[in-house]
Amino acid sequence: MAGIRTPQSLTRAGREEMGEKAPSMEEAMPVVFAEFVDVVGRLESHYRDMQDIEFTVEQGRLWMLQTRNGKRTAKSALKVAVDLASEGVISQEEAVSRVEPAALDQLLHPTLDPKAERRVVAAGLPASPGAATGKIVFDADEAERLAQAGDAVILVREETSPEDIHGMHAARGIVTARGGMTSHAAVVARGMGRPCVSGAGEISIDEKAGTFTARGRTFRAGEVITIDGSKGEVLDGAVAMIEPELTGDFQTLMAWADKVRRLKVRANAETPLDARTARGFGAEGIGLCRTEHMFFDDARIAAVREMILADDEKRRREALAKIAPFQTSDFVELLTIMAGLPVKVRLLDPPLHEFIPHTEAEMDALAAAQGLDAAKLKRRAKELHETNPMLGHRGCRLGVAYPEIYEMQVRAILEAALEVKQASGQAPIPEIMHPLVALGLEMKYLRELTDRTAREVFAGAGDSVDYLVGTMVELPRAALRAGDLAQHAEFFSFGTNDLTQTTFGISRDDSGHFLQAYLDKGIFETDPFVRLDQDGVGDLIRIAEERGRAVKPGLKMGICGEHGGDPSSIAFCETVGLDYVSCSPYRVPIARLAAAQAALSARSGQEREKDR
Amino acid sequence: MAGIRTPQSLTRAGREEMGEKAPSMEEAMPVVFAEFVDVVGRLESHYRDMQDIEFTVEQGRLWMLQTRNGKRTAKSALKVAVDLASEGVISQEEAVSRVEPAALDQLLHPTLDPKAERRVVAAGLPASPGAATGKIVFDADEAERLAQAGDAVILVREETSPEDIHGMHAARGIVTARGGMTSHAAVVARGMGRPCVSGAGEISIDEKAGTFTARGRTFRAGEVITIDGSKGEVLDGAVAMIEPELTGDFQTLMAWADKVRRLKVRANAETPLDARTARGFGAEGIGLCRTEHMFFDDARIAAVREMILADDEKRRREALAKIAPFQTSDFVELLTIMAGLPVKVRLLDPPLHEFIPHTEAEMDALAAAQGLDAAKLKRRAKELHETNPMLGHRGCRLGVAYPEIYEMQVRAILEAALEVKQASGQAPIPEIMHPLVALGLEMKYLRELTDRTAREVFAGAGDSVDYLVGTMVELPRAALRAGDLAQHAEFFSFGTNDLTQTTFGISRDDSGHFLQAYLDKGIFETDPFVRLDQDGVGDLIRIAEERGRAVKPGLKMGICGEHGGDPSSIAFCETVGLDYVSCSPYRVPIARLAAAQAALSARSGQEREKDR
Repeated sequence: MAGIRTPQSLTRAGREEMGEKAPSMEEAMPVVFAEFVDVVGRLESHYRDMQDIEFTVEQGRLWMLQTRNGKRTAKSALKVAVDLASEGVISQEEAVSRVEPAALDQLLHPTLDPKAERRVVAAGLPASPGAATGKIVFDADEAERLAQAGDAVILVREETSPEDIHGMHAARGIVTARGGMTSHAAVVARGMGRPCVSGAGEISIDEKAGTFTARGRTFRAGEVITIDGSKGEVLDGAVAMIEPELTGDFQTLMAWADKVRRLKVRANAETPLDARTARGFGAEGIGLCRTEHMFFDDARIAAVREMILADDEKRRREALAKIAPFQTSDFVELLTIMAGLPVKVRLLDPPLHEFIPHTEAEMDALAAAQGLDAAKLKRRAKELHETNPMLGHRGCRLGVAYPEIYEMQVRAILEAALEVKQASGQAPIPEIMHPLVALGLEMKYLRELTDRTAREVFAGAGDSVDYLVGTMVELPRAALRAGDLAQHAEFFSFGTNDLTQTTFGISRDDSGHFLQAYLDKGIFETDPFVRLDQDGVGDLIRIAEERGRAVKPGLKMGICGEHGGDPSSIAFCETVGLDYVSCSPYRVPIARLAAAQAALSARSGQEREKDR
Repeated sequence: MAGIRTPQSLTRAGREEMGEKAPSMEEAMPVVFAEFVDVVGRLESHYRDMQDIEFTVEQGRLWMLQTRNGKRTAKSALKVAVDLASEGVISQEEAVSRVEPAALDQLLHPTLDPKAERRVVAAGLPASPGAATGKIVFDADEAERLAQAGDAVILVREETSPEDIHGMHAARGIVTARGGMTSHAAVVARGMGRPCVSGAGEISIDEKAGTFTARGRTFRAGEVITIDGSKGEVLDGAVAMIEPELTGDFQTLMAWADKVRRLKVRANAETPLDARTARGFGAEGIGLCRTEHMFFDDARIAAVREMILADDEKRRREALAKIAPFQTSDFVELLTIMAGLPVKVRLLDPPLHEFIPHTEAEMDALAAAQGLDAAKLKRRAKELHETNPMLGHRGCRLGVAYPEIYEMQVRAILEAALEVKQASGQAPIPEIMHPLVALGLEMKYLRELTDRTAREVFAGAGDSVDYLVGTMVELPRAALRAGDLAQHAEFFSFGTNDLTQTTFGISRDDSGHFLQAYLDKGIFETDPFVRLDQDGVGDLIRIAEERGRAVKPGLKMGICGEHGGDPSSIAFCETVGLDYVSCSPYRVPIARLAAAQAALSARSGQEREKDR
């Protein structure tokens, strides 16, 4: 076995293959070479890993100078671990523990061919890995139109907002001139598995002219660029790429990992494409299906705005009735793709003002285009304006103030479940999740709303399905009062993005202003939006787990923030005793491996405890 | 004694005084009257309170039909309690426990003469008690100008913002067309002791025309109106008023209250006027001196903006050097007024964009007026813009990113303390408070910054003073990690406004959009910004107290949010073992009484425990 990795240059066969004429070590000093092969074999068995060795031969005597575990790419790490285990040098479990989960990210996306020429146009942050080539587009609608016409496009924006989601989905990659690793563009791109370069400050966009300028060169819309999201670079023209291979060693290691892990792995997904990708990567259900993205779709946004402008509940209900069929068909598709697996749907979360334009000019244009009353639109926009939207009229506060919105959504979810049941003969179990709950009485109100609506749907259909009702735990108060919430909830899903925002009092969107100073001065070791703050945010999760399960021992718990795909955060979820983690589809394999490693180290921790 | 309160109409003397000719009960049925006086005396002794009695006399026999503790105004409640204690019927402590602290608010402000005619122009919310008469003014600058010229003005605004502070100070009262009981206008007005009617939606303001219209009538700037902040009414013209009397019974009861309370009572004050008012009302120090209001002053705002527009640290320091002398003289004045008492100064807290205008037009006007570069101002404003300013680059995050700002402030505080020491021979002990701390390492950094600056100041002056360094606890993480913070802090001040915002994930400024639905549906019993949420926010305070004092047993703790003046919240502070409460100057007497009652009920709770 050691022979496999004995450098080619030392063996006769290797040197012949390389076309070397001088004699190999094997030929020149056969005794020493045999000793060397023996020592290497013993070292690799001892350290149970590929060794990076320095040695010398003086006066016919072998001197080993240094040995250490070899560094390698994800691909070779995988190969080494699987080989060692296949040969019985290490156990399958040890192979699982050998591969760095985050390194897998390299394998899950296309990458630029290392031999290809790179003409760097601008540099930014490596916000989402992988490479993509396409035509420059500055507008989300245009990106969608061109993509539907079969073009590959790269969306280039100053920064992105939720209204750009359809354009981001349509694009092969995203570039922003502003924003950090946790900007909207970066987070959404990682979630979508789209390569992204964010904060490429060298790029100066002139949207009116349809150009961007960088390093003295001007690029027009339609010109082709390539982005390398793993390096944070924008490149001129098309660059050759290498497609990922997820077979062989990768599949073997994943199968071993799945045997040892305790935590289930779900995906955050709302589009059919994302759901299919997630299933392909081994997701065991959906942990977070956000419903607001469904509201931005062109076919529905008009009805959504009609609902927002409605003067009373009656008109709001009329507008909602127009959205309902779309919602139902969204859920039918999703539940069908995830057949046999749990699907957790979060009811509407963002403040309503996110669905209407913000500038006077945009409002005038919208009013003219859709025959709306511009003055009324502006008045309503003024009413809805918020100083701190993150802490505003959003989440279940929408459901409490306008119960008809949540009723429509609950109805759509359950009607979809009934339809899938009737079509497939197998009833899905939807999990209905209320966001931003802070009080026991709030959960009680939402639970009653959900159950009342379910009774109506089932009575109308003459049929029923099982469903679960629960809540996000994403506010400190929800964690502290988990006992109150547990009385009316069957599950908790820790929304660690918002929980980190409120626990620290830091807006993720605004953290770029000071995060660097905190990292530079060593106050933050890592960005708490990337790696879970186990001491603070984690303490609240521990408190919620204890207090929630004290009231309801079988309470199901998972995590659905960005941290759900971060290995160190997954290790924390294992120790706290959560049931699953949920992450973006492209991180599912990473999470599966990290969960397996977490289970292994929890087990060895328990064994150490026993030995004491 | 009972005779004192036997209704006038029953006694001969009383009826004579009233000019009644028919015989009194005392004359008509002397035996029954004597029995009645005896029974009333026994009832009042038994219930130890003034009784509201129903009785009848049938065929010469007295029948007592009902008796209950009498309801009364704050003034009569005071009088009854002090009388009963003076006569030995009840103890002084019982007198203290008899008077509702919140009711004192009626006594602390001028009120409208109940006999005066009230022509109500518009109704709104009773946002801040008391009455005021003055000329209508729509602009804060104009309010200040007229007030300096000796006019009494009422500031009428759509809503107020921090830039209106000087106008609010200058005005006798404030009216807003929008905003709830916790709007900027309401909170600031209560803090200032200015009567305020908020959310008077009937008022439609036309700023350009300089008029407002309400109930079909139009009022011009300069016309006189009166506001009744206790009822939430705007009245036409000047209405006769009654000044508060804070002598006699009030002073007696306060002295008794001070004998029994354990909690100290400080005031939130930053202006000399507020500080003097607070001392007059018996404040035992300043619990929160906000320094940002000092930055808005006309004489300094230009230098503040220069600091914000500075391209580098050197220019920022040059601009700060211009603000420094103003800061020093602010603190000299404050420390002198509060001689012998502790003064807690909070370093700069709001995000920098609060100091520059927000609209393009305002920015152009400012640039033109002050010779600034308009394009640069706009670019900087865009850079500083935040999605959620509440969770943005504010608090100590300013001090970490721009240490020179906090250094200037620390220097100003300590130089002022030295100056007061030299002038008066008595050294004040300033307490330097860092806001919005979330991490132990953040506190360590700020502590080192403070101590380093202090060493420089003391070395330069050849003299020194004692000072304390501590932090606000206003983020959930600060409470959870109180042990880390305590290693570098000598005090904690619970900033329960922000702690409530982050614990609930509710922006106080935006809560108006849904708070009413929550109150209507019984999910909120009371507004958590008015009455402390003991279950959730209170839990964090308990956790912080335990974890902080576990590391540093002598850690001084107080509360400085709006809740510091709320009796039920003060009772909570007593049970948690805080050292003091701090509230707006006009609430100091309320807090003194509430603290006394809290001490009494804690004591009786302990006695009940002992009896078990």
